[in-house]
Amino acid sequence: MGTVKSDIEIARAATKMPIAEIGARLGIPREELVPYGHDKAKISAAFIEAQSSKKDGKLILVTAINPTPAGEGKTTTTVGLGDGLNRIGQKAVICIREPSLGPCFGQKGGAAGGGYAQVIPMEDINLHFTGDFHAITSAHNLLSALVDNHIYWGNAQNIDIRRITWRRVMDMNDRALRDIVVSLGGVANGFPRESGFDIAVASEVMAILCLADDLKDLEKRLGAIIVGYRYDKTPVFARDLGADGAMAVLLKDAMQPNLVQTLENNPAFVHGGPFANIAHGCNSVVATRTALKLADYVVTEAGFGADLGAEKFFDIKCRKAGLSPDAAVIVATIRALKMNGGVAKEDLARENVAALIEGCANLARHVDNVRKFGVPVVVAINHFTSDTDAEVRAVKSYVAKLGVEAILCRHWAEGSAGIEELAHKVVALADSGKARFKPLYPDDVPLIEKIEIVASEIYNAGEVTADKAVLEQLLAWEEQGYGNLPVCIAKTQYSFSTDPTVFGAPAGHVVHVREVRLSAGAGFVVAITGDIRTMPGLPRSPAAERIFVNDSGYIEGLF
Amino acid sequence: MGTVKSDIEIARAATKMPIAEIGARLGIPREELVPYGHDKAKISAAFIEAQSSKKDGKLILVTAINPTPAGEGKTTTTVGLGDGLNRIGQKAVICIREPSLGPCFGQKGGAAGGGYAQVIPMEDINLHFTGDFHAITSAHNLLSALVDNHIYWGNAQNIDIRRITWRRVMDMNDRALRDIVVSLGGVANGFPRESGFDIAVASEVMAILCLADDLKDLEKRLGAIIVGYRYDKTPVFARDLGADGAMAVLLKDAMQPNLVQTLENNPAFVHGGPFANIAHGCNSVVATRTALKLADYVVTEAGFGADLGAEKFFDIKCRKAGLSPDAAVIVATIRALKMNGGVAKEDLARENVAALIEGCANLARHVDNVRKFGVPVVVAINHFTSDTDAEVRAVKSYVAKLGVEAILCRHWAEGSAGIEELAHKVVALADSGKARFKPLYPDDVPLIEKIEIVASEIYNAGEVTADKAVLEQLLAWEEQGYGNLPVCIAKTQYSFSTDPTVFGAPAGHVVHVREVRLSAGAGFVVAITGDIRTMPGLPRSPAAERIFVNDSGYIEGLF
Repeated sequence: MGTVKSDIEIARAATKMPIAEIGARLGIPREELVPYGHDKAKISAAFIEAQSSKKDGKLILVTAINPTPAGEGKTTTTVGLGDGLNRIGQKAVICIREPSLGPCFGQKGGAAGGGYAQVIPMEDINLHFTGDFHAITSAHNLLSALVDNHIYWGNAQNIDIRRITWRRVMDMNDRALRDIVVSLGGVANGFPRESGFDIAVASEVMAILCLADDLKDLEKRLGAIIVGYRYDKTPVFARDLGADGAMAVLLKDAMQPNLVQTLENNPAFVHGGPFANIAHGCNSVVATRTALKLADYVVTEAGFGADLGAEKFFDIKCRKAGLSPDAAVIVATIRALKMNGGVAKEDLARENVAALIEGCANLARHVDNVRKFGVPVVVAINHFTSDTDAEVRAVKSYVAKLGVEAILCRHWAEGSAGIEELAHKVVALADSGKARFKPLYPDDVPLIEKIEIVASEIYNAGEVTADKAVLEQLLAWEEQGYGNLPVCIAKTQYSFSTDPTVFGAPAGHVVHVREVRLSAGAGFVVAITGDIRTMPGLPRSPAAERIFVNDSGYIEGLF
Repeated sequence: MGTVKSDIEIARAATKMPIAEIGARLGIPREELVPYGHDKAKISAAFIEAQSSKKDGKLILVTAINPTPAGEGKTTTTVGLGDGLNRIGQKAVICIREPSLGPCFGQKGGAAGGGYAQVIPMEDINLHFTGDFHAITSAHNLLSALVDNHIYWGNAQNIDIRRITWRRVMDMNDRALRDIVVSLGGVANGFPRESGFDIAVASEVMAILCLADDLKDLEKRLGAIIVGYRYDKTPVFARDLGADGAMAVLLKDAMQPNLVQTLENNPAFVHGGPFANIAHGCNSVVATRTALKLADYVVTEAGFGADLGAEKFFDIKCRKAGLSPDAAVIVATIRALKMNGGVAKEDLARENVAALIEGCANLARHVDNVRKFGVPVVVAINHFTSDTDAEVRAVKSYVAKLGVEAILCRHWAEGSAGIEELAHKVVALADSGKARFKPLYPDDVPLIEKIEIVASEIYNAGEVTADKAVLEQLLAWEEQGYGNLPVCIAKTQYSFSTDPTVFGAPAGHVVHVREVRLSAGAGFVVAITGDIRTMPGLPRSPAAERIFVNDSGYIEGLF
């Protein structure tokens, strides 16, 4: 592996096309592209609106088995598949999330694909990009400032300062801000109270931006955010503080999807990036819808494994946006399947067909789950050089018994040339007309039942438990008119269970709902199981220490 | 005044030229402009470097009398003068600061000029613009996170958590964040300590960006930031935490100056915006230097009145960047002079020559002060409709006795047509060769003497007082090698004295230095006199409540 180029070396060596040419291939006139440099652009809201009567292309979801430290390469496969579809002559667009800036300075690793399946300019995408996350941060924190300012100037709304639920956000890994006391220092600074910061991607504003139809809908949803409760326990909305208009102004540009390109100069939309635990983990509805108007095939992805990401993509994003996926790709690697079969990370390079087959139980469960939504499935084996022929054969024959095809993909090493077979298969699946998409549960069952349905159908859990206070809270929200919302379950991504150390395909486990939160603007109820951190920390030796601009003006150490 | 258009209405009605054409007029090739939309662009670092051997144009500073609630229109005059110079056939560029986003949601009022002397697109400039302030915020807060993270993971540097001086920043008016306790919530969140947030423009990173020669110098200065002190009282630098490289990466794009245009399609650089109290209050050195290479006349401004803004422009920016101003314009209004002469705000519309002449003492002092730097002066009377002929005559004859010309300017109402006379006069002054610029004090006098020189020469104070601890701190910094730095005095902008209610031209007053701070990266020592807020609050009825996107997609309520 000594001569293998790093992701950033490959990205730097790429020949970029001017973004106006990428846009032109999608039929976007130059004046409807809002350029950010020569290689990034936003697509104007006016242009998007003008496409509404056009026919939609086919929607393909890329999801994965439960993530392991061995890596699965979901974004890499999404990008590779998009390139592969273009290679076989199809008009395809990729839709992925924007990465968060904060984590770049913690653990090494960007989020723009890898190897020969990347979106570029990767440095920009991983740093400030077009400023969307900064705009989200500003809008969120403006609301926070307005809450405390309202209380400072007399608290006409009677906000109970013990029951303010709206925190502040920052796009930074900063554990010191998780729990803080604000408004210290005397009368001029307000009323001291406990609060804290979450990372920007955990903001409800991020989820709202990604689910809103357009700027008007965005403003309405922003107004519906609950910032806390009055002394009489009634909710205080952002609109009660007159915050919605100014927040929408701050997000006006951010609402427009970003267009970039792959290493092979194919169009990619990179827009929005909500957390996949306390939010729904998909790129924006606006980007996906726009892509569907401009291309015949749209390849998108959802965060974490299919138990979290695909479920939320289907039950929250597709349900609410009226999207109907035509096919799904489940990404697996031989290495990750072996880990699911009990192999330790240091032994992954050794052939172990028995453990691999055992680990395939995890894949089989995800295949079964995705089919429950009425979406036809193909498995992509994202190739690593350590994979043996016997191992690849074992996975193929395992999934064949499930009536599903598994296709070996070498896009990481070869770009689109290594993923042609998958591209052909995806076209066949999406064009087969076999998709009969339906969400897992209807809108009108009680909130706790929705949680139970997901836990039973997707996680294969035996039981859902919750404290009385949690159950009462769910009932209260139903009485307040929020009962028709979907649920967004925050659970560890490493297991079907709530225990991150349980690999494979556990069954009959207990899912304990520790806490519930209402994202009234985004439009879902979050059920938290286990520990969910909404503000990461930096590691002992943060990547920031090794990041710099070299003498040639290139950024080093970011990836 | 019923039919007078608002600033935003005028701005909206303007015919913008594509920014590439504005750049072309300055000889900037299209590929060296980094576009942000069609009406904003950054100028590439490579292009800037390539201009270094070119001859410099003439540098003109626009400064003002002490600000009053009546308004002086310093930015408006800067923009108007730039347009006026272009109108009379000169190649002129405007250099001004970027406004801070936070205050836009507090009190009404943008910072991109006014009337028919504005830079556009004003909404963008007043909101996210090209993301510079967000980048500064991120770089600042990355360092903050690295400080607490370093302590969390064992504190190898032995940082005394009681002596951490580096706070966090946000571009928001949020008084609740002024004084906070961080790292609460238990072992996983670090060591609880007192801290707080300043507004982003108060960040030393902002001052550094505005004083750095280039990206390499920026990185060096970032590394020299002092974040706090060890238990042995030695300073801990940002470079000790390995933060400088990653901070420079975050600021790579922000270092490139922003090009926009005036209402009359003349080029304007809008770049950087440090506070004019605890920092030096001028646009970036990079922007000013680049403008000087591309134009024959560069019109720039400094924050607040000449006692603060011009003094820091000369003693900090010009001294450190080797700039040599050729002329200065002191902006005054009849209304503000009358307030300085004791007239109440509600009586300003009435003619009052006696009070006006009394208030001219303030103007005379500023004229005298600017001349101490060896820079020839002209006074611009920024016209208001309530000004009477007698009043204008009175000011003209008052300053004539000082050997200075005062010129009535109607750029607010008439654009460049209303400021031709001033433009001609400025050309004559700048071309006269009379400028003999020198800073007020040499580098090698003790820090306390530098403060005394400014207080005595500029403020006309009788005495400087300071606690023993302050004096000892200054001596300690001198021993550590910081004695050659200029001083940056934080004082109320409303008076020559430290009492904001004393108008006119007070003399013999006492300047008490309450606190001193070392901005080792920016390269100055801050002396704080009186109360200086580094995090503003929102008013009772914040502008945010009235800001929204209207049905035509335009932003309302921002100005």
